[in-house]
Amino acid sequence: MSEPIGIGLLGLGVVGTGVARTLLEKRESIARRVGRALELRRILVRDTQRPRALSGLPLTTDPDAVLDDPAISVIVEVLGGEEPAHTYIRRALAAGKHVATANKEVMAKHGPELVAAAAARGVDVAYEASVGGGIPVIGPFRLDLLANDISQVTAIINGTTNYIITRMSQAGLDFATALREAQEAGYAEPDPRNDIEGIDAAYKLAILATLAFHARVHPNDVYYEGITSLSPSDFRYAEELGYAIKLLAIGKQTDQGLELRVHPTFLPTSSLLASVDGVFNAVQVDGDLVGRIQFYGRGAGAGPTSSAVVADVIDLAQRLPGEMPIRAQATAYEARPIGRIEDVHTRYYLRLVARDRPGVIAAIASVFGQLQISLASIIQKEDVPADGPNGESGETYAEIVFMTHRAHEAAVQQARQRIALLPAVARIGSVIRVED
Amino acid sequence: MSEPIGIGLLGLGVVGTGVARTLLEKRESIARRVGRALELRRILVRDTQRPRALSGLPLTTDPDAVLDDPAISVIVEVLGGEEPAHTYIRRALAAGKHVATANKEVMAKHGPELVAAAAARGVDVAYEASVGGGIPVIGPFRLDLLANDISQVTAIINGTTNYIITRMSQAGLDFATALREAQEAGYAEPDPRNDIEGIDAAYKLAILATLAFHARVHPNDVYYEGITSLSPSDFRYAEELGYAIKLLAIGKQTDQGLELRVHPTFLPTSSLLASVDGVFNAVQVDGDLVGRIQFYGRGAGAGPTSSAVVADVIDLAQRLPGEMPIRAQATAYEARPIGRIEDVHTRYYLRLVARDRPGVIAAIASVFGQLQISLASIIQKEDVPADGPNGESGETYAEIVFMTHRAHEAAVQQARQRIALLPAVARIGSVIRVED
Repeated sequence: MSEPIGIGLLGLGVVGTGVARTLLEKRESIARRVGRALELRRILVRDTQRPRALSGLPLTTDPDAVLDDPAISVIVEVLGGEEPAHTYIRRALAAGKHVATANKEVMAKHGPELVAAAAARGVDVAYEASVGGGIPVIGPFRLDLLANDISQVTAIINGTTNYIITRMSQAGLDFATALREAQEAGYAEPDPRNDIEGIDAAYKLAILATLAFHARVHPNDVYYEGITSLSPSDFRYAEELGYAIKLLAIGKQTDQGLELRVHPTFLPTSSLLASVDGVFNAVQVDGDLVGRIQFYGRGAGAGPTSSAVVADVIDLAQRLPGEMPIRAQATAYEARPIGRIEDVHTRYYLRLVARDRPGVIAAIASVFGQLQISLASIIQKEDVPADGPNGESGETYAEIVFMTHRAHEAAVQQARQRIALLPAVARIGSVIRVED
Repeated sequence: MSEPIGIGLLGLGVVGTGVARTLLEKRESIARRVGRALELRRILVRDTQRPRALSGLPLTTDPDAVLDDPAISVIVEVLGGEEPAHTYIRRALAAGKHVATANKEVMAKHGPELVAAAAARGVDVAYEASVGGGIPVIGPFRLDLLANDISQVTAIINGTTNYIITRMSQAGLDFATALREAQEAGYAEPDPRNDIEGIDAAYKLAILATLAFHARVHPNDVYYEGITSLSPSDFRYAEELGYAIKLLAIGKQTDQGLELRVHPTFLPTSSLLASVDGVFNAVQVDGDLVGRIQFYGRGAGAGPTSSAVVADVIDLAQRLPGEMPIRAQATAYEARPIGRIEDVHTRYYLRLVARDRPGVIAAIASVFGQLQISLASIIQKEDVPADGPNGESGETYAEIVFMTHRAHEAAVQQARQRIALLPAVARIGSVIRVED
């Protein structure tokens, strides 16, 4: 057996502790399987005195002690956030060390540059843990699917929002209650904005789309909407109409270029993604050769993330810096225009509250008609709670739901604005895109 | 860009044609993505004069012309069957060529020896296409899941039987009709025995279990039953009880060793595997770090298989023979005893036809009681078609279904024999294991 490979760890939070525990507790079985031991040599933390779940670890507060240690050939970055993680990764690569990172923000914003910087130094940056936790998704794109032309990637890649949505759907909770529950269960952070506003999913979609479409996709190219405006009634109507609501990340090749969007979506309950519940993630890929494939599992947590990080470390440990990359690198990007959200062409669900008067539906339907949006179905429920803007007493309100046939986003947004101005309309509840 | 890598192809059937087509039609995009062109130099066929879907191919009937060509560094084997495929693969490896194969029979029976022979020559044998078509399953076991201790692999890995079962379940067809339909659709071969008797699935389970449990699992270690004795009424009862029936391949670590079995199985309809229909495959893995993950897609066909074979070729083409293996090889097998089917401990469904007389259920239930098998539920339907052994006129028959709590296979088989001998019992319809 060759000599052990030295590992440096940046960060010892939940994920870092999981990685350290795995490297220590599984040292022998990993060495047996890999033919080489992995040795945790140095761990960067903010405070070496803080009580830790694991004792006797080689902690340091000095980044140089990790990044400049010549006996360390693989750096594991699990700090999270853009800085200083990005700077440390750059330094490690420049020093000729491999890097394994779980950092979606850094890889989404700087991935292609880091991959190129690594290649220039004869090392590699591995980031399987950055999307989908322990589910192998990066590896398949970097190798297994390389012969395919991929037409679409459709993913549930944020466990926090999927947990909240599942609770809203199954227990009828409102958003605030479901969020609080997720926070109490440790599935949502005290400041949950990155998750619930769709930003985290947009980072991950940028990473997947870069790989799937061999294009340089930046998070700024991704349109995103979060789940904060979903209401329990949206879930009730969805069920009535035969749909589930999911926060989907969609990357699609169209004639106009790449469509890249993250938003709540109506999905037929018969679709596989519709049954991905709780904190689970799923990534669905449509390729010209492989057809439709899907990967499913836990997208976060110490165990799943450690599984991916340690696999990356094993992958990197198979060769010394300077040897050729183990997995094919998509370094030759193809130029692909990025589509605008206004050009999306799909079906829509629109829920609104209106005064229950004759002619209301006709007025709304005529707006749709003027904009060439054809309607597939209308559901009206009477006597919903008012919440009208002026709280007129004696007035009854109806909740009305419209499902359109395929229409252009731009037209639907225009319809939304015009309908909101109709005197009989109290408020627009939601506009949600529908995918088949 | 480096010079092209020479590919030799053994076999030009449905899969071989798919591989050749992919290598030719995607030559440029693959070269761009991989940094190196793949050049199809020679193809072994039985008859060079036969009309082919692709013209101008470099055909030969001489295996030496492929296996001994010094300009060929990767051999793709898509002949199928044990011989001569196995011999050709050995020769190619001995000649210092990489091999990519889709051959489950060869890899199940000889995989570990071939992997060792390859390693001894500094080359590699890749076999992603041998299980699950284009779904990445071998790669994840060889690398992505390597840090995990895997407790169970549960898979639907034979598309032919899953298609037949799906038709029986959804359209109420009997087995013979569903099989004929599958043959007409091209999903079942004229001689379907390998598929419908569970042999193909047993090969694939041997391959997956070898990887998952780091143990040398031979197909002879796998207990298998096919789907030929399933009847439409089994599907009706399954639905009534909240289950789907699937031909599952199960590999499980137990205190008694490895449980390795392929058989029809009752699965709760809420489980993800229950909704894998038609020719689709799914592989579910339970790991200590990663939790439960699942891979889903088409398990056969020219496109999916080519997707996997060409990915393997790309993987192999990244380095010259003599350089180190790209993916970690599980060459260090751990000794694990193989459990016996008699020791399986699970729940059971038993369907039988009995004369509709007082005391019948009591007699049957008392057999279960004597053998310490406790019953969870009983369904009795009267007036089923007789088919009794003696065709007594005037006698009415009842179909009775028993669901047991967890019990030992040995006891259940004994119960089955004793119940079959009861005077009131006309025949045992099915005994099917139940998994949660």
